[in-house]
Amino acid sequence: MDMASDAEDRAMRWAIALASRSIGATSPNPIVGCVILDAAGQSVGEGFHAYAGGPHAEIRALAEAGVRAKGGTAVVTLEPCNHTGRTGPCTQALIAAGVTRVVVAVPDPNPTAAGGAATLRAAGVDVEVGLRGDEAAAGNRAWLVSTRRAAAGDPRPYVIWKLAASLDGRSAAADGSSQWITSPAARSDVHILRSSCDAIMAGVGTVLADDPQLTVRDPATGAPATRQPLRVVVDSQGRTPTDAHVRDSAARTWVATAAEVGTGPDGRVDLAALCTELFNRGHRRVLLEGGPRLSGAFLAAGLVDEVVAYVAPKLLGDGPTAVLDAGVTTIDDAIGLEITDVARIGPDLRITAVPTTAPKGE
Amino acid sequence: MDMASDAEDRAMRWAIALASRSIGATSPNPIVGCVILDAAGQSVGEGFHAYAGGPHAEIRALAEAGVRAKGGTAVVTLEPCNHTGRTGPCTQALIAAGVTRVVVAVPDPNPTAAGGAATLRAAGVDVEVGLRGDEAAAGNRAWLVSTRRAAAGDPRPYVIWKLAASLDGRSAAADGSSQWITSPAARSDVHILRSSCDAIMAGVGTVLADDPQLTVRDPATGAPATRQPLRVVVDSQGRTPTDAHVRDSAARTWVATAAEVGTGPDGRVDLAALCTELFNRGHRRVLLEGGPRLSGAFLAAGLVDEVVAYVAPKLLGDGPTAVLDAGVTTIDDAIGLEITDVARIGPDLRITAVPTTAPKGE
Repeated sequence: MDMASDAEDRAMRWAIALASRSIGATSPNPIVGCVILDAAGQSVGEGFHAYAGGPHAEIRALAEAGVRAKGGTAVVTLEPCNHTGRTGPCTQALIAAGVTRVVVAVPDPNPTAAGGAATLRAAGVDVEVGLRGDEAAAGNRAWLVSTRRAAAGDPRPYVIWKLAASLDGRSAAADGSSQWITSPAARSDVHILRSSCDAIMAGVGTVLADDPQLTVRDPATGAPATRQPLRVVVDSQGRTPTDAHVRDSAARTWVATAAEVGTGPDGRVDLAALCTELFNRGHRRVLLEGGPRLSGAFLAAGLVDEVVAYVAPKLLGDGPTAVLDAGVTTIDDAIGLEITDVARIGPDLRITAVPTTAPKGE
Repeated sequence: MDMASDAEDRAMRWAIALASRSIGATSPNPIVGCVILDAAGQSVGEGFHAYAGGPHAEIRALAEAGVRAKGGTAVVTLEPCNHTGRTGPCTQALIAAGVTRVVVAVPDPNPTAAGGAATLRAAGVDVEVGLRGDEAAAGNRAWLVSTRRAAAGDPRPYVIWKLAASLDGRSAAADGSSQWITSPAARSDVHILRSSCDAIMAGVGTVLADDPQLTVRDPATGAPATRQPLRVVVDSQGRTPTDAHVRDSAARTWVATAAEVGTGPDGRVDLAALCTELFNRGHRRVLLEGGPRLSGAFLAAGLVDEVVAYVAPKLLGDGPTAVLDAGVTTIDDAIGLEITDVARIGPDLRITAVPTTAPKGE
C-alpha cells in the first residue's frame, strides 16, 4: 500500500471541507465528502452527501469525473458503503468506474454499511484508511458516537447540553428575568449550534415559563432557517399549552409524554426510553436546552455527551441556576468534564467540554 | 525631544522585567525598575525597588553605573520621585550623576511624589514620558488605581475578588464539601495570586466553616513563603476563635470588628471604612477570598476592582454558590464585567475580568 501523496492529502482536506457543508442536514446519515483524482493526480470530480436519501458523496464525485475516474483515486472522508439502502452501494460504483485506489479518512462503524474496504480490496483496489482521520471524525463526532453505541446495543443520540449563565452560575436574576444574560453574538452562536442538530429538546417547565420558539433563526431579524430541527418537549403529563410557540407551524414538534414514551423511576418520562425512541426516529445529534431539572436528570442518568456553556461576564448573586438535582451530593461524586474548547464569543465565553467518565454504553 | 532609540526600548523592556521581581513586596510603594545607559547607549547599571524603605530603583542603578552615568540616559518604569521620603529624591540623584536624558514609562499619579519630570527638565535634562507605558502600568495597576483614587479623595485599596466554582457555579457540593473543586495547578496559581497582594481578606463565616490558613504556601509541600500578606478577617462581632488558623504565627492578622472599624447600614462592619483603613495602613492590593455574603456585600458596594474566577470543569447541580446578595434583583441591574484574560490552568479555566461600570470614586 502506498503512502498518501501530497495530492491525496490536499484532496482529503478539501473533501473534509466539502463534507462540512451539510452539517446538521444528513441525519440519520453521516456527513461525507469525496474528491476523485485522475491517474495523473489532478482533481476531476468532487461531491458531498447533502441530505439523507440524496446521492452519496462518491456517486456525485464519480458523476462529475466521468471517464476520467478510470485508473484514478477516490479520496473520501468515510469508508464507502457496501450496502444497498436508498442508494446503491458506493463500492460497486467505484469499482465500475475503474478507480484503482481509494483513500479513506475514517472507517465506517455502522455494521450495516461497513465492509466497504474489504469489498474494494477483494476487487483489486488499493485501499488506505486513516488519512486525516481525526479531522474527518470531528465533523461526524455525534454520528460516530451514536452509531458505535447503537452497534454495542445502546441506541441513543449524541446529546449536547447547552447552558447560558452569568460568571457566578445564575441563569436568570432573582425575579426570573433572563433576557438577556448573554450577548447578541452568543445568541447568534446558539442558533448556529441549533442548526447543527437534528432535534432541540426542552422540558415542559421551560415551555410554560418562557414559551420559547426552539427554532433556528437569524436572531437579528427573526427570519427562520429553511431547515428546522425537530422540537422535542419532555412533558410527562402533557401540559404543553395548545397555543405555545412550540406548537406553531415553524417546525415539527414532538410532545413526548410519559404515556407515550414510558415512565421512569421518578414517575416522569423515562429518559433512556426517550433517547432510544429519538435514535429510532433517526435523530443522532440532539441539543438539550433545559430547564434545570431536566438537565440535571439527563446528567444524573449519564445521557449527556457534550456540554456547551455560554458564560456571560456578569454577576447576579441570586436567581435560578442552570442545573438542579444532578445526583451529586458530595464533591467526590461531581460529574467530571474535560474542557475541549474555549472561545470568546463577543464579550462572552463559550466553554465546550465532554464528560471524563464515558457515558453509559460508550 | 528625541524619539526613544532601540537601545532605550530594549532597556525599558528590561526595566519592566526588573520591576516585576518585587511584585507584592513594595506596598505602599509601586514596583519600579531602572536601567542606566552610558553616553554610547551601553547598559552600565540596573536596579529595582525591592521593598518599601529600601533604595529606589534609580539609586541602585546609579550606584552600579558610577561615573559611567555621566552624559548617559536613565530608563525608568515610573517617573522619578521628587520628594524626600525615607530616601532622598531620585531627581536630585540623577542630576548629580550627570544624566542628560531620562526616559519614563508612566507618569507618577502620587501628588506627594510627582513633579519629577518638571524638576529634571528645569535642570536641563531631556525627559521623554510614555515609552511602553501600558506594559509598565500593567504591573502597577493596583498601585496606580488606588493612588489615583486617593488623590481624588477616595483612599481605598485595589480589591481583587477570587472565586472558585464548578462550571455550573457551585463553590461546594450539597453537603458542603469543596476539597477540592479546582485542580492542584489552580490551587498553586491562587498562591501566586496571594503572593502578589498585600492583604488577604475573608469573612468570619468562612473562618468558622473552613478554618483556612490564608497564607502563601507551596501547596505541594505546605512550605510557607518568606513574605506573608496581612490576613484580614471581617468579623463584625469578634467571633474569630482563639485557636483559629488565622490566629497562628504564620502571618500577621487583623480581626476587623464593627467596634473598631465602624458599623455600616446593615449593622455589620462598614466596608467602605474598612477599605479606607486598609489603605491608610499601607495596603494597596487586597485579595478578597469570600465567603459568599461578604463577596456579595463588596460587589454591591462597588468596592471590587477585579474578578479572578477559577472555573473547574465539573458539574454539581446543587450546593452553595460563590456569591450571595450582590444587590441585584433583575437582569438589567446585573453587575457588568469585561473579560480581560482567559487562561487554561491545568484542567481548569482562570477568567479575569474587571467591572465595566467604574467602581465608586474612580
